[in-house]
Amino acid sequence: MFLEKLKSEGLAHLSYMIGDGMEAVVIDPRRDIQCYLDIAAREGVRITRIFETHRNEDYVIGSVELAERTGASIHHGHALDFGYGEDVREGDTFECGALRLRVLETPGHTPESISLVLTDSNQGETPVGVFTGDALFVGDVGRTDLLPGREREMAEALHASLFDKLLPLGDQTLLYPAHGAGSVCGENMADREFSTLGHERAHNPMLQITDREAFVKCKLGEQHYVPPYFKQMEHLNQCGAPLLHHLPRPLPLSADDVAKRQEAGACVVDLRSAEAFAGAHIPGSLALPLDLLPAYAGYLLDYDTDLLLVAENVGAVEDAIARLVRMDYTRIAGYLKGGLGAWETSGRRFGHVDAINADDLDARLQSGDAPLLLDVRKHTEFKAKRLRGATHVFLGHLPDRLDTLARDRRVVTFCGSGKRAIVAASLLKRDGFDDVANAFGSMAACEAIGCATLETADNA
Amino acid sequence: MFLEKLKSEGLAHLSYMIGDGMEAVVIDPRRDIQCYLDIAAREGVRITRIFETHRNEDYVIGSVELAERTGASIHHGHALDFGYGEDVREGDTFECGALRLRVLETPGHTPESISLVLTDSNQGETPVGVFTGDALFVGDVGRTDLLPGREREMAEALHASLFDKLLPLGDQTLLYPAHGAGSVCGENMADREFSTLGHERAHNPMLQITDREAFVKCKLGEQHYVPPYFKQMEHLNQCGAPLLHHLPRPLPLSADDVAKRQEAGACVVDLRSAEAFAGAHIPGSLALPLDLLPAYAGYLLDYDTDLLLVAENVGAVEDAIARLVRMDYTRIAGYLKGGLGAWETSGRRFGHVDAINADDLDARLQSGDAPLLLDVRKHTEFKAKRLRGATHVFLGHLPDRLDTLARDRRVVTFCGSGKRAIVAASLLKRDGFDDVANAFGSMAACEAIGCATLETADNA
Amino acid sequence: MFLEKLKSEGLAHLSYMIGDGMEAVVIDPRRDIQCYLDIAAREGVRITRIFETHRNEDYVIGSVELAERTGASIHHGHALDFGYGEDVREGDTFECGALRLRVLETPGHTPESISLVLTDSNQGETPVGVFTGDALFVGDVGRTDLLPGREREMAEALHASLFDKLLPLGDQTLLYPAHGAGSVCGENMADREFSTLGHERAHNPMLQITDREAFVKCKLGEQHYVPPYFKQMEHLNQCGAPLLHHLPRPLPLSADDVAKRQEAGACVVDLRSAEAFAGAHIPGSLALPLDLLPAYAGYLLDYDTDLLLVAENVGAVEDAIARLVRMDYTRIAGYLKGGLGAWETSGRRFGHVDAINADDLDARLQSGDAPLLLDVRKHTEFKAKRLRGATHVFLGHLPDRLDTLARDRRVVTFCGSGKRAIVAASLLKRDGFDDVANAFGSMAACEAIGCATLETADNA
Amino acid sequence: MFLEKLKSEGLAHLSYMIGDGMEAVVIDPRRDIQCYLDIAAREGVRITRIFETHRNEDYVIGSVELAERTGASIHHGHALDFGYGEDVREGDTFECGALRLRVLETPGHTPESISLVLTDSNQGETPVGVFTGDALFVGDVGRTDLLPGREREMAEALHASLFDKLLPLGDQTLLYPAHGAGSVCGENMADREFSTLGHERAHNPMLQITDREAFVKCKLGEQHYVPPYFKQMEHLNQCGAPLLHHLPRPLPLSADDVAKRQEAGACVVDLRSAEAFAGAHIPGSLALPLDLLPAYAGYLLDYDTDLLLVAENVGAVEDAIARLVRMDYTRIAGYLKGGLGAWETSGRRFGHVDAINADDLDARLQSGDAPLLLDVRKHTEFKAKRLRGATHVFLGHLPDRLDTLARDRRVVTFCGSGKRAIVAASLLKRDGFDDVANAFGSMAACEAIGCATLETADNA
Repeated sequence: MFLEKLKSEGLAHLSYMIGDGMEAVVIDPRRDIQCYLDIAAREGVRITRIFETHRNEDYVIGSVELAERTGASIHHGHALDFGYGEDVREGDTFECGALRLRVLETPGHTPESISLVLTDSNQGETPVGVFTGDALFVGDVGRTDLLPGREREMAEALHASLFDKLLPLGDQTLLYPAHGAGSVCGENMADREFSTLGHERAHNPMLQITDREAFVKCKLGEQHYVPPYFKQMEHLNQCGAPLLHHLPRPLPLSADDVAKRQEAGACVVDLRSAEAFAGAHIPGSLALPLDLLPAYAGYLLDYDTDLLLVAENVGAVEDAIARLVRMDYTRIAGYLKGGLGAWETSGRRFGHVDAINADDLDARLQSGDAPLLLDVRKHTEFKAKRLRGATHVFLGHLPDRLDTLARDRRVVTFCGSGKRAIVAASLLKRDGFDDVANAFGSMAACEAIGCATLETADNA
Repeated sequence: MFLEKLKSEGLAHLSYMIGDGMEAVVIDPRRDIQCYLDIAAREGVRITRIFETHRNEDYVIGSVELAERTGASIHHGHALDFGYGEDVREGDTFECGALRLRVLETPGHTPESISLVLTDSNQGETPVGVFTGDALFVGDVGRTDLLPGREREMAEALHASLFDKLLPLGDQTLLYPAHGAGSVCGENMADREFSTLGHERAHNPMLQITDREAFVKCKLGEQHYVPPYFKQMEHLNQCGAPLLHHLPRPLPLSADDVAKRQEAGACVVDLRSAEAFAGAHIPGSLALPLDLLPAYAGYLLDYDTDLLLVAENVGAVEDAIARLVRMDYTRIAGYLKGGLGAWETSGRRFGHVDAINADDLDARLQSGDAPLLLDVRKHTEFKAKRLRGATHVFLGHLPDRLDTLARDRRVVTFCGSGKRAIVAASLLKRDGFDDVANAFGSMAACEAIGCATLETADNA
Repeated sequence: MFLEKLKSEGLAHLSYMIGDGMEAVVIDPRRDIQCYLDIAAREGVRITRIFETHRNEDYVIGSVELAERTGASIHHGHALDFGYGEDVREGDTFECGALRLRVLETPGHTPESISLVLTDSNQGETPVGVFTGDALFVGDVGRTDLLPGREREMAEALHASLFDKLLPLGDQTLLYPAHGAGSVCGENMADREFSTLGHERAHNPMLQITDREAFVKCKLGEQHYVPPYFKQMEHLNQCGAPLLHHLPRPLPLSADDVAKRQEAGACVVDLRSAEAFAGAHIPGSLALPLDLLPAYAGYLLDYDTDLLLVAENVGAVEDAIARLVRMDYTRIAGYLKGGLGAWETSGRRFGHVDAINADDLDARLQSGDAPLLLDVRKHTEFKAKRLRGATHVFLGHLPDRLDTLARDRRVVTFCGSGKRAIVAASLLKRDGFDDVANAFGSMAACEAIGCATLETADNA
Repeated sequence: MFLEKLKSEGLAHLSYMIGDGMEAVVIDPRRDIQCYLDIAAREGVRITRIFETHRNEDYVIGSVELAERTGASIHHGHALDFGYGEDVREGDTFECGALRLRVLETPGHTPESISLVLTDSNQGETPVGVFTGDALFVGDVGRTDLLPGREREMAEALHASLFDKLLPLGDQTLLYPAHGAGSVCGENMADREFSTLGHERAHNPMLQITDREAFVKCKLGEQHYVPPYFKQMEHLNQCGAPLLHHLPRPLPLSADDVAKRQEAGACVVDLRSAEAFAGAHIPGSLALPLDLLPAYAGYLLDYDTDLLLVAENVGAVEDAIARLVRMDYTRIAGYLKGGLGAWETSGRRFGHVDAINADDLDARLQSGDAPLLLDVRKHTEFKAKRLRGATHVFLGHLPDRLDTLARDRRVVTFCGSGKRAIVAASLLKRDGFDDVANAFGSMAACEAIGCATLETADNA
């Protein structure tokens, strides 16, 4: 008997595989499915069923790919008209050796959301654990804003799912959510990834709001961003994603190749660290450090444009490919062999971004000739704390807002730590902004040194 | 923030490593410590503290080894006079980033046993989990028979530890015991290795016996075996085991080498499958299939004798070395290169063991000329179910009981599946028994085909 | 610049991958192509060309599979009408960075055989190495018996290829043959796998026979076996093998499943060691220890029969699958989960094979009641050395010769070490022979102890 | 029978392990010896002998460490008074299964240098290969400048070793040198790492100079650098290096820790790419990108100073530790957890280095206000090609020459590609130079675009 959690870094997506005897079940598989096949081989089981807790919007689910390789059946909630798989309903029960999964309809995040209650038939009917999808996380609950016009209905449904269906499973129930800390599917997830319904009942902030109206009001007051790629994910996850068979292989390109393809319209995506991009980069390239890729590719990349990758090594290229494919970015033409050095030694021009220290920035903001301080954090972050005079544009929205920014003075890009700021800096430079500096350390540094220009929600 | 469970196969010993920020803590480390160092490197933490839930009796704890490599401090209960480390007492609290461990004295398995309550200081004082050592397992509780003359006292103490200290932590508490299914430290552990106090409160058979006297009576009625190597483990774990620095390397030996060393007194340990031993083996060798090694080496191997290993491949030799060293068997002279084939082609004589099918055995037992059926399972297994006329000698006690067995007729060795039986067969053959056959399939096969000679506790 | 040799164990097939700059070339790829893709990723190259030194007869070449994944072109000799790829001719030259490959037509093993001369354009035209396919090995040369009726022509062609084309490349030339020791494509290959043309010129026994007629006579005198699966390989390698995309996954089967499928005609292939098979096995199963599989599967397995695998662990199952697929045995229904123990504990009957020691065998052969001694080694081995009175049937021919063997007395199976003998024993038992014993150690043991019945080519 | 080459990246040091039967021999082991133990386990051999081709000066040899773990004996030339091991002399022969190693005294690089001729006793006395240490490489021969005052003697000795001892082994002999391309022990090694004596005889430029005087003159005319750490290496390799038992573990440090230790005198070594260092770095830190570390650490690091590492990830830290320890830099206090981001977000000040494009540099050099162009390549590189007006200081000598440079104008650091230049830039900035820019692309870029200020040996 085994239960294994598989985390897709970046998306912070959690899938699960459980098995007993000769069989196994996968819940919310990712698109690069080799990991499940490896576990199946190691444990000596066949994957016979795949469950989808809901139509995911932040990644392409791997159900169809996995079903094709294993012959497993696919199961999901009946409240959405899927183009593949089988519907399940409240109370449907599935066995896997001595393990048993019972369907609980838990709408709220989406109408067709289900949870799966795990019991061990060797030990009665008391729930051992529950796979909650995007209904309940460690430290947070699911978003209810994804169906325009139905926000109230969804928030009410989530309240019922949480308080009338999930919590009654009992404090002893292990919690297995579909996302961990770092996901775009929740703001306040805990860093700790192991919990129980009992612990959440006691400490999850949203579960303290038992009153339905108060809960709904709180959910309606939340402001989440909706990356444009969600549309593509929703489409693929409803209709069934095309089969991949294999991840694209990393193909080397020369500096010459990269230059020609870039001219022909391909997008150069620079996966290196913010500091490396600042030091030197291919003019016109987009900075998208590997760990930011899952969160911002969906805003900044286009499904119809070829991608050219720049990285420190092939391992990073392979990681990026897996992450891109999980979001259906499959037009990956190759990577610059030899990294940026190959570009530099080819004699082609490179760009760079100035770096500005927090104390210098603070001084400058207080001086007569303050730069345009462009803060690209989320609305909630900006509201809580900011530097005086900062202009706020959320990073995901920046491409559409570039025309609103003055081009005649230095722009300092700014975020929580300086990482998202480099993405912003690359967007500005690509759009022709001349004088761009990046505030490495950004808000964290400003707080650490106590900038005079620091404003909080309270003192503002 | 991370929590990782590390399982030592065979012993079914579970150790844990938790970390947050720059620090990590290891609970009940094993002696081959590289796994902890690897996690520390991957997670970017220093191991600063090591906890021992109790003086273990079934393996050499790796605390001293790990402390030497990392500079970590060692902590254990004060109710035993350890030769190293520091005492902790009820309520002592240790921080590791945002994680906090609080000491709970939970005597019963041993007087100095402690549990460690895990809380997340980001989320109040509600216990997240508890490391229970050998006090509470999934599906069972700890043995209380290890201190001769103090069995009642220990059983009472365990009752108090379970009902007055552990269960009050709350149903939501994740359970992290020191052993999983397969350990010699408990008979009835569940195959499932994830649970909570709430689930155990509802289903752990021993936690249903809330009445103290009934509980004590039940514990006193248990019959456990005590492998002789426990003495060595207790000694080392109280005084502090000598440093190893490295596991012994697998050294190849020729058939000639093996023969000479065996003549000089070394013990040939055959790690291959029961079937392979039956097919052909070195005369005088001890069958100890790799997965039985942790459970029976402690009865059958001697600390003062060199060991010569026979296996199918070097991987199995390396596994065996790790398992032996965990039990302090470090006199490993080498392994037969080329496996048994090297012995066979050298022209030296080999032995073999006959195999007997369950239906043939059943028929023979009903005939006039029944063989001596030697059942080497545990007392409890034998009591529950056996073949008519079987002689019971527990495998661990067989070396001392060989003289009580008739040597003039065929002996059929028998157990649950035929595996332990092959160990018995090898002991008999080594002692000069001529006509030995092994009942592959053993009790499982007999039940499957419904042997006429099958007796159960009820029908007997 | 890199050159990597990849060995397929069992077949002792060697393929090569060389690369420089952005490109790489693969020579004689195997069918499970992931290894080449991994090297390409690590080295940052694209695989642009695939060379086949000849139409292989002992495995399915992976050219088509690899071409489909990489877009590489396939090249082979023009003297055969291939159903795919492009023809090359003497002197054709291909560049791969600074490396250069020049085609040398070297018929003899087959008419279309080519060699590829490697030069480093940084360092003149002196050959660095040569990929010789099956023309020249370390310690031996290729077979010339595969085209019935054209044996002389082929032997003459090989003589010319060796002495007029290959050796003139110079002593300094590194030798990269298509097979290493253990292949069915040559009897006398050296255990050492690194050599040069100069070293071979001095020591390869066949290269000492410079006289053409003497060479041809020697080749015509050779007696090689032709496994029936060669036909299938030749067909696939001429037409182009169907795409696999993935290796079959190891699928667990219960004892019940195995029994039912066996009854329905599937073939149980037991991959365990000879000793384990002797100890206990599924009645009717074929012993084919993993390391013998590539050499004998082609004689003993059928392309139209489902295969059921029995092994000690899943790793062995996965190895077997790769080896089987390389020979186009793709009907692999699954493996017995839990190994033979699962069969035994199910209560189903198992068989076993007696083991006989060399001294006992020798004595028995000298006695009045000698068993039928069935020696299944190759003709050349038997001719060189045998026990008195032995019956010789080459293992690969045994299925067709079973009816010629007496069934009324004990049969002792015999080979070089006892391994091939267990395969023979399993064939006999499957065919209903009652009394079969296996001579573990076989000829090696007999020589070691100096059997009285040992006859050599000289003393016979 | 196996022969395995093990390459230590960076140093481009090649060690070899050969084995047959039960034994193996290691030639010139490195200090982190686990790789040899792993091969020994895989191949089923004992390491019984260790050979040192000479007292190495560029790394700490692992002989003592390996001997301690395996019990192997150590062997080296008699012409130096070693503090450990055993002397060997011309003609001494050692067996390892069927392999045989014969000692050839081949002084020149050092007086005690030996080569080891490999023969296969299955195949006569013709040499199969030769381990040449630093006497002969692919494409180059060893340095003869390391014994002050004895340069001529050594050059003569090398001529004799090459022409009278090595080449006579025959063209067919495989060449196994102690270094590959990238080593500080030779300038002109080929990128290709497989060769034979025959191929070298034909193409190695130094082997074309058969005349002794011409050869000696050529050698005496060579100009090599001698990194100061060679002294330490020579000392340790003559006396025997202290045992390590384990590589230092990577220990995380906070920004605060790093700052405090740096103030207390520790040296911050930044292993990141040149671009990342330019983007932002810890003030006072030394840029030493991981792949430059082996070549320049020996000039720039001090044995008495604690090292603090900055890297993109723990993998790079571990690589750096291995490389540092091979050069005996063992005072590694830890690494900055979270990388440079942790420094930036702590609010501490960071530095950065401007980047200058080749065309801009060319234009500036032709203008009235040319910067100080500091070219830090090797003398030979500078002599062959340079930008007009450049100041040459070899990177290894820069720390001692900083006072000779003008501090009142911008300094542009320059090398072959911009990588070594960043190391120079970090040295300048650490020493207080204010205005430093790095020429990414450097000479390669200048050539690619055809700079007007480019001068070559010919046109200058």
